[in-house]
Amino acid sequence: MNGTLSVIKAGGNVLDSPEALEAFLDTFAAMAQDRILVHGGGVMASQTMLRLGIEPRMVDGRRITDEETLKVAVSVYAGWINKTIVAKLQARGCNAIGLSGADGSVIDASMRPKAPVDYGYVGDVKAVDISFLELLLQQGYTPVLCAVTHDRKGTLLNTNADTIASSVAKAMSQTRLVTLTYCFEKNGVLMDPEDANSVIPHIDKPLFEELKASGTVSAGMIPKLDNAFAAIDAGVEKVIIKNSSNLGNSIGTIVQ
Amino acid sequence: MNGTLSVIKAGGNVLDSPEALEAFLDTFAAMAQDRILVHGGGVMASQTMLRLGIEPRMVDGRRITDEETLKVAVSVYAGWINKTIVAKLQARGCNAIGLSGADGSVIDASMRPKAPVDYGYVGDVKAVDISFLELLLQQGYTPVLCAVTHDRKGTLLNTNADTIASSVAKAMSQTRLVTLTYCFEKNGVLMDPEDANSVIPHIDKPLFEELKASGTVSAGMIPKLDNAFAAIDAGVEKVIIKNSSNLGNSIGTIVQ
Repeated sequence: MNGTLSVIKAGGNVLDSPEALEAFLDTFAAMAQDRILVHGGGVMASQTMLRLGIEPRMVDGRRITDEETLKVAVSVYAGWINKTIVAKLQARGCNAIGLSGADGSVIDASMRPKAPVDYGYVGDVKAVDISFLELLLQQGYTPVLCAVTHDRKGTLLNTNADTIASSVAKAMSQTRLVTLTYCFEKNGVLMDPEDANSVIPHIDKPLFEELKASGTVSAGMIPKLDNAFAAIDAGVEKVIIKNSSNLGNSIGTIVQ
Repeated sequence: MNGTLSVIKAGGNVLDSPEALEAFLDTFAAMAQDRILVHGGGVMASQTMLRLGIEPRMVDGRRITDEETLKVAVSVYAGWINKTIVAKLQARGCNAIGLSGADGSVIDASMRPKAPVDYGYVGDVKAVDISFLELLLQQGYTPVLCAVTHDRKGTLLNTNADTIASSVAKAMSQTRLVTLTYCFEKNGVLMDPEDANSVIPHIDKPLFEELKASGTVSAGMIPKLDNAFAAIDAGVEKVIIKNSSNLGNSIGTIVQ
């Protein structure tokens, strides 16, 4: 074991607000432990596509990534957003290095099968190169991963940032005690969706079953918790679901 | 000394033609020695700005980089172009890693003074972190640098790719025998600008003075050669000026 590691997924609400981003990066940069940041694109990619006159195409609420959409996604995710975060972390004394999955081939993916729905340039994670991440971490660098991977055949692929975060956390569990933190716009898993303070502090599998049976957890939260338990089953020490603004405190739901 | 190193600047003509890019990367990937690729943005940044309705502002033929222009430049250079090159090199078995100057703070710059002309978010290179580049090279990674730097205060800066290439070559000369290759659309320094085959194979300082005195070298070539000799004076072993399509052969001008 090489010690502990925190894999932190930044929510879209952080990327969409300059003030929230500054506060989030203040806390992230001040963390003393080894950590990896994962981010998606927020609304900027959609806004840029609108300005470029690219029509969003959705199937079952999921975006179809055609070639033009891929160009915008890679430009915005791996370009502007990733480098903005890296520069802001550097200004805070955190020696960040921005990576797409193609860089050092750190995340290999395969294009999603074209049936039943052809989502275009969308990748499913196949492998994470933990030796490259270990090299960077052990030399004092903080990897900042964006939601872009590649297929090792020269094609870049748009890839869900939550999946990248959990894939990296699972893979790094081979050499580290890993905490995976999902930051989003709520304070955690809530007993009462109308009450932001009704955070359930700790959920284990029996409680999750109870909460599902009683209808307490919302439909949108069930896949998040399913993914959290899948990460635990794959060796991740614990998963934390919390508000981006609470990165520096203990408010949130621990799944373990 | 840690052996030899090739620093290669890819010309815009390579980035603007898919066929030329594939051929260039075939040759680059097949090179056996340690190497660093530096690229600018070709015409894609300008095209994207036009599509976004951003008016280019030029002073004395140089672009003013306002905030909107910076966003497009960073998105296109560090995003789409850099990651496309990295993915294509990975497909060729070359373990590339794309970097802006902010990543690992590999290239620090300062914003150009606002007088006499305020060029906006344009950076002049201050320092190159050769220990980070050495770490990557010694672990078998091939750095691919785009024309973006940062000021260590959180601001990204648009920076001339030729300058990045020469700054990296000069800095790496502390530990390596460095060849700096500028690839562009001509076969080298020509005796007769109308004759593509009239390449001058070797130029030293006395010959450069002669060529200037006789008016043989064109006005546009003089700053390139001045920069080449400045690199030599700063420790670079040799500078090669050649056509991108000749990367794999000996056609070109050696400045030494």
